[in-house]
Amino acid sequence: MIRLTRRYPFSAAHVLARPDWSEARNRDVYGKCANPSGHGHNYVLEVTVRGALDPESGRLVPIEQMDALVQRRVIEPLDHRFLNRDVPEFESCVPTAENIARYAWRALKGELAPAILDRVRLVETANNSVEYSEEGQRP
Amino acid sequence: MIRLTRRYPFSAAHVLARPDWSEARNRDVYGKCANPSGHGHNYVLEVTVRGALDPESGRLVPIEQMDALVQRRVIEPLDHRFLNRDVPEFESCVPTAENIARYAWRALKGELAPAILDRVRLVETANNSVEYSEEGQRP
Amino acid sequence: MIRLTRRYPFSAAHVLARPDWSEARNRDVYGKCANPSGHGHNYVLEVTVRGALDPESGRLVPIEQMDALVQRRVIEPLDHRFLNRDVPEFESCVPTAENIARYAWRALKGELAPAILDRVRLVETANNSVEYSEEGQRP
Amino acid sequence: MIRLTRRYPFSAAHVLARPDWSEARNRDVYGKCANPSGHGHNYVLEVTVRGALDPESGRLVPIEQMDALVQRRVIEPLDHRFLNRDVPEFESCVPTAENIARYAWRALKGELAPAILDRVRLVETANNSVEYSEEGQRP
Amino acid sequence: MIRLTRRYPFSAAHVLARPDWSEARNRDVYGKCANPSGHGHNYVLEVTVRGALDPESGRLVPIEQMDALVQRRVIEPLDHRFLNRDVPEFESCVPTAENIARYAWRALKGELAPAILDRVRLVETANNSVEYSEEGQRP
Amino acid sequence: MIRLTRRYPFSAAHVLARPDWSEARNRDVYGKCANPSGHGHNYVLEVTVRGALDPESGRLVPIEQMDALVQRRVIEPLDHRFLNRDVPEFESCVPTAENIARYAWRALKGELAPAILDRVRLVETANNSVEYSEEGQRP
Repeated sequence: MIRLTRRYPFSAAHVLARPDWSEARNRDVYGKCANPSGHGHNYVLEVTVRGALDPESGRLVPIEQMDALVQRRVIEPLDHRFLNRDVPEFESCVPTAENIARYAWRALKGELAPAILDRVRLVETANNSVEYSEEGQRP
Repeated sequence: MIRLTRRYPFSAAHVLARPDWSEARNRDVYGKCANPSGHGHNYVLEVTVRGALDPESGRLVPIEQMDALVQRRVIEPLDHRFLNRDVPEFESCVPTAENIARYAWRALKGELAPAILDRVRLVETANNSVEYSEEGQRP
Repeated sequence: MIRLTRRYPFSAAHVLARPDWSEARNRDVYGKCANPSGHGHNYVLEVTVRGALDPESGRLVPIEQMDALVQRRVIEPLDHRFLNRDVPEFESCVPTAENIARYAWRALKGELAPAILDRVRLVETANNSVEYSEEGQRP
Repeated sequence: MIRLTRRYPFSAAHVLARPDWSEARNRDVYGKCANPSGHGHNYVLEVTVRGALDPESGRLVPIEQMDALVQRRVIEPLDHRFLNRDVPEFESCVPTAENIARYAWRALKGELAPAILDRVRLVETANNSVEYSEEGQRP
Repeated sequence: MIRLTRRYPFSAAHVLARPDWSEARNRDVYGKCANPSGHGHNYVLEVTVRGALDPESGRLVPIEQMDALVQRRVIEPLDHRFLNRDVPEFESCVPTAENIARYAWRALKGELAPAILDRVRLVETANNSVEYSEEGQRP
Repeated sequence: MIRLTRRYPFSAAHVLARPDWSEARNRDVYGKCANPSGHGHNYVLEVTVRGALDPESGRLVPIEQMDALVQRRVIEPLDHRFLNRDVPEFESCVPTAENIARYAWRALKGELAPAILDRVRLVETANNSVEYSEEGQRP
C-alpha cells in the first residue's frame, strides 16, 4: 500500500456564525471566531492518494495532473477569498475547518484515477487541523 | 469519517531510570536519558478525536470544552513539572514517551463525547514521537 | 549585548486596496490580495528587545509584563479582526505587512523599559515577512 | 496499540528518467525532475514501528538498536549519494519518492523485532511525501 | 528602517571537491560532501531588501517584480540543476553554501530599486545556513 | 561580509529560582518556571561566525572543527543534564535563557579562528529565544 501526500497552501478569510442564530449564540458556540467582520488564516490542504505503483514510471499518480486538478477544483475557488461571501457552498454552511475539509473531499473524490483519494487534511492554524476520509463507510 | 487534531505544548523534566535497577543497567537500557539528575523536553501532545459532524454548527466537538478538558486532565498535571517526582503515576512507572502517551490516553478516553478519542500522539523531540490508540483491540 | 525575542501568533483578515484607487489599479499594485471581499492570514509577531542583563534575576525584562503589554497593545486589537474595518489605523492606511509591522513598532516603542525595543518582525506567510526597526535613524 | 516514529534526515541527488525512454518522454512524465545532470533533496525518512509496550522498560523497542539498524540498512547506503549511480537498486529502477520509500520498507521489514514495522514515510520536499505500508495485504 | 524578506525554495545537486586537489585532500576538507557522484539539497534562498515605505501603497517594493527578478536571476539557473555541471560559475568555483550565497548576492545587487539589497541567506540543511551582505564594507 | 550559522539541539532540565530568595519571590519573578522540582526544554543553540571566505575551499571555517568545538565546549556539558545541579556555572547563577546564551558565548569566543564569533542564539521554546553578541562593545 502506497500513499502520496501533497501540500497546497492558501490564504482565506471567514467568519464562524450562522445568520439564523443570534450574535450571542454564535459567540457562545464559536468564541472570537464569531467576530462579525471576519478574520483569516494561512490554510494548508494536504491531499493523500493511495493505489498501486506504476512499475514503469515508479509513480503512483502523475503529479502535474494532480496539482492542476487540486488547484482548479479547490485552491483557486478558495485562495484569497472571503469564504462566506465568495464561495457559494459557504453562504449557507459555516466554513469551519471541518466543512472546508469536506468541501475539498467532495471536490476531489473520484477525480484522481488511477489513484484513489485516501484522505484530505486541512491545517487551519499551527494547533488545529481536520482530516476527512471515508474509511468508516467501508463494508 | 472526520478527525480533528489539536496540539498542546508543555515543558517537563524527567529521568529514564528504574530505582530497582543498577545505574549500569539503566544506562544500558536508556543511554544518556538515564543521567541521574534528569533532563527535559518541550513536549507537544496531539489529541485526535473522531465522530460525526454536527450539521448545525459544522463542528465535530466544542473546541473550548475540549481544550479545557485536556488542560485540566493532562497539561496542568505535567507542565513545568519533573515527571518522576511531581506526578504520582510516574513515581513507579518510568516516564518514557510511550508511558506519557498512555497516561494522556487514559486521562482523556471517554471524556470527549459526543466525539470519540481516536489517538494521542506525544512528540518528545524533533525526531521522536509516540502514538497511542486502541484500534488493535477492536473486535 | 543581549536580545530577547518572543513570538505572538494572531489571525486576521485584510484586503489590500486603496478606496481612492480604481479596482484595476489596486489589482495592478496588489495582485490577488486586492480581491474586494478580503482574505486572511495566520500572522506571527516577533518582538525583540535589547538591553542589559539584570545580574540578580538573570533576565533582560520581566517576561510576564512584556507578554501582557504586547497582548494589550497589539494582539488584542488585531486578533480575529478584519483589519481594514475593525482597526481605526487601517481605515485610511492599507494593512500591508509593512504597515502592520510599523503599527506594532509604534504601539510598543518606549513601553518595554528597562529594555529597549530593538525590532519587530511580522511573519505574514511562510514566505513573506517584514522587519521594522529604527537603527537607520541612530546618530 | 502503540506506535513509535523516529525521523532520519539524509541528503541525496537523483534524476528521474528511464534510460530506455527518450528524453522527450522522460520530460513529459517527470517534468524538470528529468534534467539529465540530476538535482537533489534533503530527505527525511520517518520509520514507524508498532507493538506491545515492554512493561518493565516502558519502551516499545530499544531505540539505540533501531537507530543503528536504520542507519546501517538505509541511511548509510543513501546519504550523500547520487541514487541512480551509487545505489545498485536504483540503476534500473527510477528513484522516485515512491521507490525510495519501498526500498526503505524492504530494508527494514522483519528487522525490528520485537516490534513490527508499521510504515515508512519519505519526505522529499516540504510539499511532497510518500508513505509505504502493507496494511492492504492483511487477510 | 524597514526590511522585507521573501523565501524562495529550490532543489539542486552538487559535489564539494576541487578538480585540482586529490580525492584524499577533498575528503579531508569537505568530508562526505566530497563523494564524487554528488548529492543534493532542498535549498531555501531568503532575500532581504531594505528601504523606505512607499506612503501610498504601504509597500517597500513591488513584490511581483521582486519575485520575477529572483526567479529569473537565481532560481531558474539553479533549480533542479547539478550546480557543478549546469551552472558556468560553479565549474571552477566549488558550490559551497558560502559561494552559492555570494552568487545570489551578485545576481541581485542593484537590481531591486527603489529598495536596496540588504542580505541574502541560503539555508542548505535544517542545521546549516549562510548569510551574505556588504555591511562590512560601509565607510 | 559572510556569516555562517549552525544549529545544535540539546535537551536539559532547569529550575528558575534563587536559593537566597523566598519561594514566593521566586514565583513572583519566574512564574511556573520556579516550580521547585524543575522542568525542561529541547534547546537549540545557533552559533554564527563571520569572516572572510577562503578563496580556495569556498568555506568560511572548517565545519567539522567547528562542530567538534561546539560539542565539546557547550553541548556535552549541557545535554541531558539538570543545569542547576550538573553544571558548576549554574549552581550560583540562575540558568535563564539569557544566562545560558552568555555561557555559550563565553565558551566559544576566540575559539573559532580564522572566523570570528558573531553571535549565539539560544532557542528555548517555540516562542522564546535569546541572542548574545558583543556588537555594543565595539569602539
